[in-house]
Amino acid sequence: MLNFSFHNPTSIHFGVGQIEKIDKEIPQDAKVLVIYGGGSIKKNGIFDQVIDALGGREWAEFSGIEPNPNYDTLIKSLPLINDMQVDYLLAVGGGSVIDGAKFIAAAAKFEAGEPWDIIAKRAKVSQALPLGAVLTLPATGSESNSSGVVTRNGHKLPFTNKLLRPQFAVLDPQVTLSLSDRQISNGIVDAFVHVMEQYLTYDVNAKVQDRFSEGLLMTLIEEGPKALNSETKDDLDVRANAMWSATLALNGLIAAGVPQDWTAHMIGHELTGLYDIDHARTLSITFPAVMKVRRDVKRDKLLQYAERVWHVVDGNEDQRIDKAIELTENFFKTMNVPTRLSEIDLDATHIDTILEKLQQHGMVALGERREITPDITRIILEAAL
Amino acid sequence: MLNFSFHNPTSIHFGVGQIEKIDKEIPQDAKVLVIYGGGSIKKNGIFDQVIDALGGREWAEFSGIEPNPNYDTLIKSLPLINDMQVDYLLAVGGGSVIDGAKFIAAAAKFEAGEPWDIIAKRAKVSQALPLGAVLTLPATGSESNSSGVVTRNGHKLPFTNKLLRPQFAVLDPQVTLSLSDRQISNGIVDAFVHVMEQYLTYDVNAKVQDRFSEGLLMTLIEEGPKALNSETKDDLDVRANAMWSATLALNGLIAAGVPQDWTAHMIGHELTGLYDIDHARTLSITFPAVMKVRRDVKRDKLLQYAERVWHVVDGNEDQRIDKAIELTENFFKTMNVPTRLSEIDLDATHIDTILEKLQQHGMVALGERREITPDITRIILEAAL
Repeated sequence: MLNFSFHNPTSIHFGVGQIEKIDKEIPQDAKVLVIYGGGSIKKNGIFDQVIDALGGREWAEFSGIEPNPNYDTLIKSLPLINDMQVDYLLAVGGGSVIDGAKFIAAAAKFEAGEPWDIIAKRAKVSQALPLGAVLTLPATGSESNSSGVVTRNGHKLPFTNKLLRPQFAVLDPQVTLSLSDRQISNGIVDAFVHVMEQYLTYDVNAKVQDRFSEGLLMTLIEEGPKALNSETKDDLDVRANAMWSATLALNGLIAAGVPQDWTAHMIGHELTGLYDIDHARTLSITFPAVMKVRRDVKRDKLLQYAERVWHVVDGNEDQRIDKAIELTENFFKTMNVPTRLSEIDLDATHIDTILEKLQQHGMVALGERREITPDITRIILEAAL
Repeated sequence: MLNFSFHNPTSIHFGVGQIEKIDKEIPQDAKVLVIYGGGSIKKNGIFDQVIDALGGREWAEFSGIEPNPNYDTLIKSLPLINDMQVDYLLAVGGGSVIDGAKFIAAAAKFEAGEPWDIIAKRAKVSQALPLGAVLTLPATGSESNSSGVVTRNGHKLPFTNKLLRPQFAVLDPQVTLSLSDRQISNGIVDAFVHVMEQYLTYDVNAKVQDRFSEGLLMTLIEEGPKALNSETKDDLDVRANAMWSATLALNGLIAAGVPQDWTAHMIGHELTGLYDIDHARTLSITFPAVMKVRRDVKRDKLLQYAERVWHVVDGNEDQRIDKAIELTENFFKTMNVPTRLSEIDLDATHIDTILEKLQQHGMVALGERREITPDITRIILEAAL
């Protein structure tokens, strides 16, 4: 096991009716900015529940955060925050809204230049507005981690700072019942690949982390299809298991003490930035390709994954690895996400553009050993055609 | 899944050499009381590492915390804390030292009567000294939870308060290399039963929690015997896996959203209070008896446990349950702990005394459904003879 430090102080309130816990978490005298996306929370009653829970606190709202939150949208909140002297942000939404709120939290207190410098120049963030989250779309784990991704002019770039971790997160599985099938499948696949990025590397004899990762993968494989099936999709336990899996997939726990890959994510971010593809639908294309191209360096873990997650024990090692990759792709297909670039209308002619973007963003030494060069990334993209 | 709130803000520093992180965690101007047990940390160099990490901070020491920390010992620290105006406690030891430090943390700020009222009368604890922990004996999980157990005049009683959760915990597996085999086996068995108390109840379709619990159990089963075997016991990965398992066994995570039992613990506490038996060695006796007597109400989970943890799939349901109980007892035997009251020189004539103590401590409705009456507890004790 590798050395690690782990600290996740986000307070989680999980279950039906937990939105009322907001009242306990936000200071009584706080001026709150409620941040959300396209407005579905106004139709399904979540917005009203949130405002009720805020009691008599002063609040305002800022909406319109899009999937893959856009820098230009986010900074429009800053004059309102300034005018009203907002001192608490409450994100109500999925990963994009929460990521956007994190960026706003940092930008509102950033005085050393244009807020974009936080991302582009990795400018130091030494203070931020506190924030909480009401999760409506389980997927990214953003509700209890300190990272986010923001897009500007086709550049989709990550940022992280411990000041940006939500102080609390409300996870009410009932809230997810109004999601579309596409949102559900994206969330399941996103969480699945998050686990794989931290699991499918090389063995460091971190037995608990491996078992926890395998437990999350098995749960997502079991509950994912149920969350799309009309007979089981409204089962709150199905939603709860998927929701808790997605949070634990990226809250730092399974990452503690193990190497991490994230190649599929870095390539995927470029597909989203360039071609506006849903985040999860980039991962379902890039991740199987990473498995195939990196099967030799990931050999031990692929065999363990085959046996423990998919119960593949027959055949020689290569056959078992083939089978595990095939089952992974089949799982993605069952979740109705694409597994090939051709399904999103991209072909070999797009590869150079994608590689250029990666180069431009400094993504030239990827993978758990930082040994994935642009040449190997090209092979991965070719494997994804 | 049941509703839950989960909040574990303890900062974990895991790995060889992490004791130096103390310096980052404790305020620079703190006056620190270093609390420890019998003094082995002075022989194995851990005390010196801790003092080095404290830098120039003012510090004093308070030692002599015994296994199952005694109230009369603990309150002897209070004059020193008062005289020196100590404002940070640093526990260096196993669960007993950390539990003791938690009680001291509460007692030092308790002004509403005798500190024993905190336990006996459940008096409100509204402030406490902050504390950190350097774990030397992985077992109880006390290093990142908010509970403790203190003994006075044969009464071994629990207390809990979120103010008493360590702000940080250092987990250096190298520190555990000097433990005796008895300490190691006690730690593994304690952690194992902690998981079982939260896992072996009734099914609430909490898939992630079940998988995580099973992962911890499998890890302890795999690494426990290695930690006693002379050829493998010094392998730091073995120690690290056991150590991280023990922390995660009782940090609140696998308890979130599921029912909990704790019958074996409540009976075990009386065995320790009355007859001075090591905590883990009471659990290795009481827990198998609980499994046997409660096999009907725990049926579904026993079958799941048999299959997933022990890979028992042959035979009818009762045979599979029999096998799972037998394998659990065999595991305890491999860890060189007793599984019968007769092995600690107790017989049927002691049962009334144990039941009286449980009655005296209000432990008359035990188990995950609070339906274990004293009559059922008697049957459990008889099954443990």
